[in-house]
Amino acid sequence: MAEPKTNELMEKIVSLCKRRGFIFQSSEIYGGINGFWDYGPLGAELKRNVRDHWWRAQTQYREDVVGLDASIIMHPKIWEASGHTTTFSDPMVDCKTCKGRFRADQLDSTPCPVKPSKMVCECDGEKTEPRAFNLMFKTYVGPIETVDNVAFLRPETAQAIFAQFQNVNACARQKVPFGICQIGKAFRNEINPRNYTFRSREFEQMEIEFFIRPDEVVQKIAGNVATYADGMDTSAPQANWGWELWHRHWVEERLKWYESIGLGRDTLELYWQEKKELAHYAKACVDIQYKFPFGTQELEGIAARGDFDLTQHQKHSGKSMEYFDEEAKAKYVPHVIEPSAGVDRLVLALLCNAYTEDTVPDEKGKPETRVVMKFHPRIAPIKVGVFPLLKNKPDLVKKAKEVRDLLRPHMTVFYDEAGAIGRRYRRQDEAGTPFGVTIDFDTLGEKPELLDTVTLRDRDTCKQDRVKISDLVPLLLQKVR
Amino acid sequence: MAEPKTNELMEKIVSLCKRRGFIFQSSEIYGGINGFWDYGPLGAELKRNVRDHWWRAQTQYREDVVGLDASIIMHPKIWEASGHTTTFSDPMVDCKTCKGRFRADQLDSTPCPVKPSKMVCECDGEKTEPRAFNLMFKTYVGPIETVDNVAFLRPETAQAIFAQFQNVNACARQKVPFGICQIGKAFRNEINPRNYTFRSREFEQMEIEFFIRPDEVVQKIAGNVATYADGMDTSAPQANWGWELWHRHWVEERLKWYESIGLGRDTLELYWQEKKELAHYAKACVDIQYKFPFGTQELEGIAARGDFDLTQHQKHSGKSMEYFDEEAKAKYVPHVIEPSAGVDRLVLALLCNAYTEDTVPDEKGKPETRVVMKFHPRIAPIKVGVFPLLKNKPDLVKKAKEVRDLLRPHMTVFYDEAGAIGRRYRRQDEAGTPFGVTIDFDTLGEKPELLDTVTLRDRDTCKQDRVKISDLVPLLLQKVR
Repeated sequence: MAEPKTNELMEKIVSLCKRRGFIFQSSEIYGGINGFWDYGPLGAELKRNVRDHWWRAQTQYREDVVGLDASIIMHPKIWEASGHTTTFSDPMVDCKTCKGRFRADQLDSTPCPVKPSKMVCECDGEKTEPRAFNLMFKTYVGPIETVDNVAFLRPETAQAIFAQFQNVNACARQKVPFGICQIGKAFRNEINPRNYTFRSREFEQMEIEFFIRPDEVVQKIAGNVATYADGMDTSAPQANWGWELWHRHWVEERLKWYESIGLGRDTLELYWQEKKELAHYAKACVDIQYKFPFGTQELEGIAARGDFDLTQHQKHSGKSMEYFDEEAKAKYVPHVIEPSAGVDRLVLALLCNAYTEDTVPDEKGKPETRVVMKFHPRIAPIKVGVFPLLKNKPDLVKKAKEVRDLLRPHMTVFYDEAGAIGRRYRRQDEAGTPFGVTIDFDTLGEKPELLDTVTLRDRDTCKQDRVKISDLVPLLLQKVR
Repeated sequence: MAEPKTNELMEKIVSLCKRRGFIFQSSEIYGGINGFWDYGPLGAELKRNVRDHWWRAQTQYREDVVGLDASIIMHPKIWEASGHTTTFSDPMVDCKTCKGRFRADQLDSTPCPVKPSKMVCECDGEKTEPRAFNLMFKTYVGPIETVDNVAFLRPETAQAIFAQFQNVNACARQKVPFGICQIGKAFRNEINPRNYTFRSREFEQMEIEFFIRPDEVVQKIAGNVATYADGMDTSAPQANWGWELWHRHWVEERLKWYESIGLGRDTLELYWQEKKELAHYAKACVDIQYKFPFGTQELEGIAARGDFDLTQHQKHSGKSMEYFDEEAKAKYVPHVIEPSAGVDRLVLALLCNAYTEDTVPDEKGKPETRVVMKFHPRIAPIKVGVFPLLKNKPDLVKKAKEVRDLLRPHMTVFYDEAGAIGRRYRRQDEAGTPFGVTIDFDTLGEKPELLDTVTLRDRDTCKQDRVKISDLVPLLLQKVR
């Protein structure tokens, strides 16, 4: 089958997301609100699986990362220290004719208020000089709206980690190098939210701040600082790693993680920022990009940020951010490697990556086109569908419900008895459910040798195997975990 | 041991929460921000376990509830429809002397700005008349701060569920009665945040809107509407249940759930709101309260809200909220039972409930006082500590790390080799880790019959059993799931 065209493909994905309950427009019944999205039943489970898998990869499978769950509204001085108050802005211009406000760098791709069907300011009116527009959402905390009470919705989760570095360090029984990770919402008042959920105003981040020794401390302790060479194994941390090796380590770790949820390396592109693109304090930054139908775009940035953030907070708070390193017998402000990923972007990438149209035989062997969401079983919203072959046979229904109850403590199960079995399979194909269990007359012993067996259908191959009910739990757990 | 006095107990809990990394003040290095809290490594895991357990209880173990994950900022008309714009306010007065602003109904328990050590407006100055102060945090979406661009941080998660009722209904393959659940942050600009994390400005909710048939439809289909009698079994839904039975069902379900995470019925109190306390549209409301050291306070409210919310949104959006009931051959706006719980309050209740001081023999048999957090294993942040008896014996350390790697895919593990074994136990007691596994010389075969066995210590009894390493995973999984 020919690859559908890009826009057409994106339209199909968006349509399926609404129809099957992955993603809805926020406040749709009131005409929506630009840049805000809701996750429906399947989307909420998908997102939850992504978060869980990421959290466990850091805090459970690693010994050197602990979690944090900080508030969205923080003290405004946090954003002075981080630089967001002064520099987190986009350049904007106003059109003196249509009164529209546009990002100066996106003037040619923004709908004109006068002719909204045109993706450009059509009135050609005179524009004001660009002015900086801060992207943080502002609010007031407490009963009085004064300058003293201004607060912001965090534009990133990272700063809470820096602000709480000493509290976590005091309790976590960790030694540098170690990391703190966090998942949570962040907000940016984007002028032009776009590309579906990709650039939205409310979004979720998964961030790790991994604190390491400054290179000079590594040099002192290990006698040298390892340098990276192509093909080097960066999976097992070594005492002589400086920022460069730790940075490579995290790039590799994160690629492995994406692979573990079904985004193979062929679906991703690494973009190494050039020196001139880097922030003045950054030593390196790699973007992990996914090839979306609307273009290759960033899922995650992995930056070597030096000691910039902790030093800024030390300066602005007057509180020491130094760490005493027993082995080095020295105090220092740790340096940081920051793998920072967007949950909503990743969910969108997973939806795009899963969306497949193929041709399979229907129940009568006639080829038919189906839509199937080929999620990795680990992140699939529903792990297994359970189907009695026929709805009107009480014994089949009873047995099917027993199987459902057997599986349910271990994974998400969808029980469905309505309609032809082929249609029930197709529904689960669209939901991305990797396995289907069908209870038929052989299960009940019509063929005595098949008593208490079921068919186990594979979503991608449509192949069906006969499996003992008693084998189902371990067999499926092995595939979905 | 005598029960510690209330304030003293609360102080001990707050101190432990900071010291062990359950809860930190948000933005502490900048002096904090009143009403906002962060969860440290242990607190983040505890909260995560609570959320997971709740979510799975609704969406995985029940067949009639699906999830939703909606945005925090929604269209402002949502709050007009719900009534929050006009009525979600507290009465406030200003003191003309000290310029403090106080809740009119809490004048006698609010710190005076002039003498903050006094929990009352001390200056005794003349007060203004009470005025309504809306508790929603306000912000502006988009680049221009105009009335048209005002938006609010949601003061509750419930309204998104109502607003998305038809979208979910269209995709979820459910029939009324069914529910939609959501976990997420909500914000209330409380004048006087207090009682630690209990009344904060940013908090998390776990809400279910359970949609049921109006009583007259039940009557039509089932021929009667069941009425509640004391001691009735409300666990298995019946066709003739009206709102009263469904309400009882959910009260019972929620109590069972609290019990399943260690809050037994003796720790809770049910408060049935009196008719005069109910909102005009509400038919009944029960508060599930916990006996906090600072007083008995609400963890969850379970309200029978009729069709108020859906009808309001139907009116304000002009979109139908009617459901077509195939069995009744009728259209109606479903009625609602709403179990609405606070995550942070529950976490605080679990911390208070877990905090225990007892006397146990130390390693030399001498009685010593210990602090132990007796969390239910299901919600304990760390499930098992793994300890080599001695740090300086490579064989013990190697074996202990093997045990850690064996357990890690299944649960959170804390590996600790530093310090005397007794001190390591105590540290995990304070963290609330229910099990401790110690690898000693017998594990290595010093007594050949004990080869590949470990001691398994129970946090609460301090009892140690000898267990085969190969039995550990199933044995522990059975206890922590």
